[in-house]
Amino acid sequence: MPEIRQNVATKDWVIIATERAKRPEEFVREKKEPKNIPSLVSTCPFCPGNEDKTPKEIFAIGDKDKWQVRVVGNKFAALFSTIPLQRKIKGIERCISGFGVHEVIIETPRHDMTTALLSYEAVKQIIVAYKTRYNTIAENSNIELITIFKNHGLAAGTSIAHPHSQLVATPVVPSHIRYRVNEAMRYFDDNGECIFCKMIRDELGEKERIIIDSEYFVTFIPYAALSPFHTWIMPKRHMSSFGDISQAEVEDLAKSLKELLLRIYQGLDNPDFNYVIRSIPTSECKTDYFHWYLSLIPRITKTAGFELGSGMFINIALPEESAKFIREISVK
Amino acid sequence: MPEIRQNVATKDWVIIATERAKRPEEFVREKKEPKNIPSLVSTCPFCPGNEDKTPKEIFAIGDKDKWQVRVVGNKFAALFSTIPLQRKIKGIERCISGFGVHEVIIETPRHDMTTALLSYEAVKQIIVAYKTRYNTIAENSNIELITIFKNHGLAAGTSIAHPHSQLVATPVVPSHIRYRVNEAMRYFDDNGECIFCKMIRDELGEKERIIIDSEYFVTFIPYAALSPFHTWIMPKRHMSSFGDISQAEVEDLAKSLKELLLRIYQGLDNPDFNYVIRSIPTSECKTDYFHWYLSLIPRITKTAGFELGSGMFINIALPEESAKFIREISVK
Repeated sequence: MPEIRQNVATKDWVIIATERAKRPEEFVREKKEPKNIPSLVSTCPFCPGNEDKTPKEIFAIGDKDKWQVRVVGNKFAALFSTIPLQRKIKGIERCISGFGVHEVIIETPRHDMTTALLSYEAVKQIIVAYKTRYNTIAENSNIELITIFKNHGLAAGTSIAHPHSQLVATPVVPSHIRYRVNEAMRYFDDNGECIFCKMIRDELGEKERIIIDSEYFVTFIPYAALSPFHTWIMPKRHMSSFGDISQAEVEDLAKSLKELLLRIYQGLDNPDFNYVIRSIPTSECKTDYFHWYLSLIPRITKTAGFELGSGMFINIALPEESAKFIREISVK
Repeated sequence: MPEIRQNVATKDWVIIATERAKRPEEFVREKKEPKNIPSLVSTCPFCPGNEDKTPKEIFAIGDKDKWQVRVVGNKFAALFSTIPLQRKIKGIERCISGFGVHEVIIETPRHDMTTALLSYEAVKQIIVAYKTRYNTIAENSNIELITIFKNHGLAAGTSIAHPHSQLVATPVVPSHIRYRVNEAMRYFDDNGECIFCKMIRDELGEKERIIIDSEYFVTFIPYAALSPFHTWIMPKRHMSSFGDISQAEVEDLAKSLKELLLRIYQGLDNPDFNYVIRSIPTSECKTDYFHWYLSLIPRITKTAGFELGSGMFINIALPEESAKFIREISVK
């Protein structure tokens, strides 16, 4: 029997469509022969030796001639920090000049790698780069929201194979984020606690949707997951801003993220996916009510007219079965 | 220079990314040889002669042996009207039994047709079917929202070629819709008018984003269009519920919808698309503040991690240029 479930934190409703549900193993991508990808591609702007093909380097980890992680401006940036911030309002036309930040985090010098297969140490350096850039950009008082995300594969919106993530900082808080923060605030006002902290406690008690329970993070499939294998990694410590992550937490997040990506890579045979770090707007960094997290969305199913029209999703995988499947993959 | 634009009615912000913008003609789908599709396919459950392969017929237009439009239950329904409506709340787990309605509107007996190429009379009958089912289902006091939508093509989430639309009725109002209605209500409270009515007036005055200005409807690309060729068809008369559309308006909507679909079909060479009718929750049918409309979203670009994470879109087409392009297609 289908169910309509609500995520108590985001207020999203989702139809868990049991009548058209698939078993977890039915989502495994068809095996493709692994292509012979070279570790270095002369035409790839993200490969070592082509550093002059990217916009200016903003940050790097590693030696000058042997970087491990490299942050550069996006060559096809959507927003620019050099544009003066201006508002224009005329009738129904409301606009802000294209001020903002758009950076690329090149995750490894190896063209043929995928984040799931990088060493734990390498994944840690990616998160260090995220944190460093987040906190530096957050100092700009004209920036209101920083979104760090990764697109992996064509269905997830990227055509560049070399492992990379992106950061976009905007001078405005999108309504979607305002609504979520307001819902969390209202829950705190009514109940005196963070709804995300409660969710972590309940999920750890229930156990059936947990994938990884590490020292500082819990990795689980939300009760009202929007799509098959939609997964959250959430810090156990109450923390509104990703920028406040401690060194010990960076290390633990690297472990959880690497393990989750590896499980997905092996269990579902390298599906396309997005992940995103959802953090509080930068001007409200220390709230009692909002809690940052990383959300992973494998792009296995398509959104159609119903989702676009209602904002409600139809998930054809049972969250509990999906979690069990990912949990039971034996990770080499 | 890029701009960050806001849709004053929905409150959505969108980045109009001029640096990566494409000219309208660059979005035209690569020409494919038209396949030789037969008008009748023996294995298609939506084709005449296979009426017993669909769930029970709910509504039809035409003669008994020669239907023009046929409404049936969805064989892979996400929700069922036979399930008793029940709520269950336990800790963070909040769920409603899978009560609801999920129907398919078979738009024509012709398998090889596409809505854009149907006669005006045939498109009118589809809208009559929408209206009839909308108003019948709205009488059920357990139904809170009715979403009518169409998925055309693989990228839009359908694999069935025979022209059809769908209707999903849910026993809950998704938060996405609540927020939009609340924003419209707040605008009305502050300004004493419907924000959508103001938008129509301003767009008709500006002219540059208008595609079709007919007797009862205005078809335009919103100032803050979320993606290339994202188009709204909006009734000129203030009306919150789609169910209140008059016979004259049905006829005029059929003309505008057919013309828009034909322009898109010819100008962009039959792209995949979704459209959706956004109407007020059924229990609030006559408000001063909300205004129903049809939203068309060609699925030409992909949403990636930034959109999923922030709820903010990056549009690589200028709304004014897109509107001009669609307006200037000579429709045969």
